[in-house]
Amino acid sequence: MAPKRTHLPASIRARLKQARVARLATLDASRRPHVVPVCFHYDGLHFYTALDKKPKRLAPEKLARVRHIAATPQVAVLIDEYYEDWTRLWFVLVRGTARLIPKSRIRERTRVIRQLRKKYSQYAAGMLPDDAPIIRITPQRIAFWGKL
Amino acid sequence: MAPKRTHLPASIRARLKQARVARLATLDASRRPHVVPVCFHYDGLHFYTALDKKPKRLAPEKLARVRHIAATPQVAVLIDEYYEDWTRLWFVLVRGTARLIPKSRIRERTRVIRQLRKKYSQYAAGMLPDDAPIIRITPQRIAFWGKL
Repeated sequence: MAPKRTHLPASIRARLKQARVARLATLDASRRPHVVPVCFHYDGLHFYTALDKKPKRLAPEKLARVRHIAATPQVAVLIDEYYEDWTRLWFVLVRGTARLIPKSRIRERTRVIRQLRKKYSQYAAGMLPDDAPIIRITPQRIAFWGKL
Repeated sequence: MAPKRTHLPASIRARLKQARVARLATLDASRRPHVVPVCFHYDGLHFYTALDKKPKRLAPEKLARVRHIAATPQVAVLIDEYYEDWTRLWFVLVRGTARLIPKSRIRERTRVIRQLRKKYSQYAAGMLPDDAPIIRITPQRIAFWGKL
């Protein structure tokens, strides 16, 4: 199913563009849930997250999330913020499919890396190499709740 | 597999007790990932999260997370905090099984509700009724990363 840009209210699109962190849920090799925090960019259509230079125990292609989406592309991405004033709570839950952008898609990779570096000064300062693997998440359903 | 209290360093146990929000990943009826933010209590052995009075679209027993764990008890719980200083980032990923505490387990339910109200003043102020359904998560594996 193609994502529909027009389905999301502008207020939610704005939150998704501004949010600094998301949580990416995948399925492991035994098809059990797994979830990690990720930095991301939302371009109004897709979500993108990079395998960056934050210290990892493994090479990018061996990272759990990469192996998981290769076996099961279905993912969930949660964007939310916690406040002690519970009347302010909100979340956006994106369900869709994830895949590594192929190295051959140079234009998309270049654009996304530029946008990630624009959003995160840490990336501009060297934490995101030109050849970083990038995961593209294509939303199928987006649900939202709370003060949005 | 029984959780082993002694496996976790004291610094991590302290983070888990203090953290105000976790993200709970479950599998939906089609065994695709789903993830929501939750308030929780960690007693050093189990994680507990309540179906509280934050506005929901559905009755507790119809909530996605309740239907999901009834069908597939395997869950993942992520506890992390985001900082712009990426040298401070950390997360704890708990994988285990979840189930609703039966109403008959009065002592456990009473203890957990008391602890949740102690942790969250919002619960003490009426957001957590005595008959709130409580989910118990029994860890099978706990992984951690970053500045802990």
